Amino acid sequence: MAAPGELGEFALIEQVRRRLGAVGQSRRLVVGSGDDAAVTLPGGATATSIDSIVEAVHFRLETSDPAEIGHKALATALSDLAAMGAEPGEAYVALGLPDRLDAAAALALCDGLLALAARSGVALAGGDISASELLFVTVAVVGHADRAEDFVTRSGARPGDRVLASGAFGGAAAGLAWLERERGEAAINRGDPGLAAAVSEVIRRQRRPEPLLALGRALAPEVSAMIDISDGLGADLGHIGAASSVAIELEAGRIPVDPAARRVASELELDPEALALGGGEDYELAVTVDPPRSAAAVAAAAACGVELTEIGRVAAGGGVSLGGLSLPRTGGFEHRRGR
Amino acid sequence: MAAPGELGEFALIEQVRRRLGAVGQSRRLVVGSGDDAAVTLPGGATATSIDSIVEAVHFRLETSDPAEIGHKALATALSDLAAMGAEPGEAYVALGLPDRLDAAAALALCDGLLALAARSGVALAGGDISASELLFVTVAVVGHADRAEDFVTRSGARPGDRVLASGAFGGAAAGLAWLERERGEAAINRGDPGLAAAVSEVIRRQRRPEPLLALGRALAPEVSAMIDISDGLGADLGHIGAASSVAIELEAGRIPVDPAARRVASELELDPEALALGGGEDYELAVTVDPPRSAAAVAAAAACGVELTEIGRVAAGGGVSLGGLSLPRTGGFEHRRGR
Repeated sequence: MAAPGELGEFALIEQVRRRLGAVGQSRRLVVGSGDDAAVTLPGGATATSIDSIVEAVHFRLETSDPAEIGHKALATALSDLAAMGAEPGEAYVALGLPDRLDAAAALALCDGLLALAARSGVALAGGDISASELLFVTVAVVGHADRAEDFVTRSGARPGDRVLASGAFGGAAAGLAWLERERGEAAINRGDPGLAAAVSEVIRRQRRPEPLLALGRALAPEVSAMIDISDGLGADLGHIGAASSVAIELEAGRIPVDPAARRVASELELDPEALALGGGEDYELAVTVDPPRSAAAVAAAAACGVELTEIGRVAAGGGVSLGGLSLPRTGGFEHRRGR
Repeated sequence: MAAPGELGEFALIEQVRRRLGAVGQSRRLVVGSGDDAAVTLPGGATATSIDSIVEAVHFRLETSDPAEIGHKALATALSDLAAMGAEPGEAYVALGLPDRLDAAAALALCDGLLALAARSGVALAGGDISASELLFVTVAVVGHADRAEDFVTRSGARPGDRVLASGAFGGAAAGLAWLERERGEAAINRGDPGLAAAVSEVIRRQRRPEPLLALGRALAPEVSAMIDISDGLGADLGHIGAASSVAIELEAGRIPVDPAARRVASELELDPEALALGGGEDYELAVTVDPPRSAAAVAAAAACGVELTEIGRVAAGGGVSLGGLSLPRTGGFEHRRGR
């Protein structure tokens, strides 16, 4: 089957290829885009992750800023490297480009991705562009460390460890809830500047997550397990519990709720604690720490300008509980539901 | 927007995840699927490439064997590693799975991919599965070498080098031409077993390409530039010419045409030489060799059971010519047209 509108599509692909090919030397990249494969000089160990975002599942093209699609595709992949404590290295981008995407939008998508790559010290080392009836962006990212044991996995939590989390939760879920109610931007500004600011903030959390790469590297030497919060705080801590064969006991009232999420939840008559615990996509980091190293972890985060909050403890057993009540096991695979 | 048929899709994704997660320890893989990222111990240098195949562009679901889709997605990515002379290492697979794909088909796709991975010594180290209204398979592959200079790029050809190619050409293009004329399998067997065998062979070349990993590694020490033939022999040699700033002069009559392609081309009233030169997707390897090393390259290929044929010379200048006539510059980016 021939691709639709082939001439236009070829020209678009060529433009996008030039834009993406223009980027990124790094000290590890020997041969970049344009050969059969990119050649790099890795550290002693590498951490690699792959992620896709797909039109009509993760975003709607009609209501999205293309630059934010490019940003989010790379940000969610890099967040996995942050959770390993990896030095960010290279990104490889596979784009599926529909003919109905105009050139300006396709290039804006590239620019959103490239801006984050540049800011994160990531070289765009290779890519593949294909025609596709739906827009999709798949990003594989590679991070480095001197030794495999320098990376932080999900499996190192031990009974007695403390559970700490960066930042605050519920913002991305509140942003999604606002967008799904399809309240236009115009409605925000009518007479309530506090609400308008909160809405703007939670939409930003939903659409432009920031991978906490510096924080992950700073925390890595101090923590026993680490994960980024994509599925939801409860679900992702459940991944640590399962991988480490331990129970995670969260303390009621300790989970920091994003004030903007609280304001928007109130407007939407949603439970802000439920958004914080179950909403996901905040891309904060949660860690487990042996108590004697807890102060060092808090200090390492503070040096990155981030507050760590103790939200619970690791115990023997399994599962995740909140204030003594078991949380249902949700999530559990690398899959994000539609928005 | 919620993904269609969410419950069924979640169950499918979980099944596929289990199938893909079941595979592949390798000596380099420290942490496999299931953490934030896979952890590997690379060689001194890595070669990395990413490739997608997309429904309605590269295949039609209605007329494809799902196992062949999985096979081809990995095979085309691994062919890039073959062209670098890399030791195959790890693969990372991002799947977009439509709800209308039944579980048996999705698992067959996985099995096609996994069978090739196992046979190629490639560990499936990570993946991402997303709902998608169209089926797509993106594969990132990582290969290894002790030193960056052990990889063979497109840029090392020098005037005076010989141009050699493995195997024979035109098969995949003849297979595509046959499939596009939509001649059913039934028609093949009516009274002409020679044609039936040729059709079966060219369809296999189109749908089940084999990445020539052992050949690439055997040739690497002997050759100055190497590429896999995906866009077409003329176009891909043009990539070597451009990257090396040389002219590629092919000799008329020297390009080996696949006998099955010749038989099918005759039936379809197509020019077999044009299929061999321009058709692409044969995933053979083409190399340039300094003449004193030519015998060693031929012997290295013979040790892999592959015949190398001298098809031309490298000269000063630019472009690709055949029998003294310039070939138009086609292709030039990582993009395969629709089938």
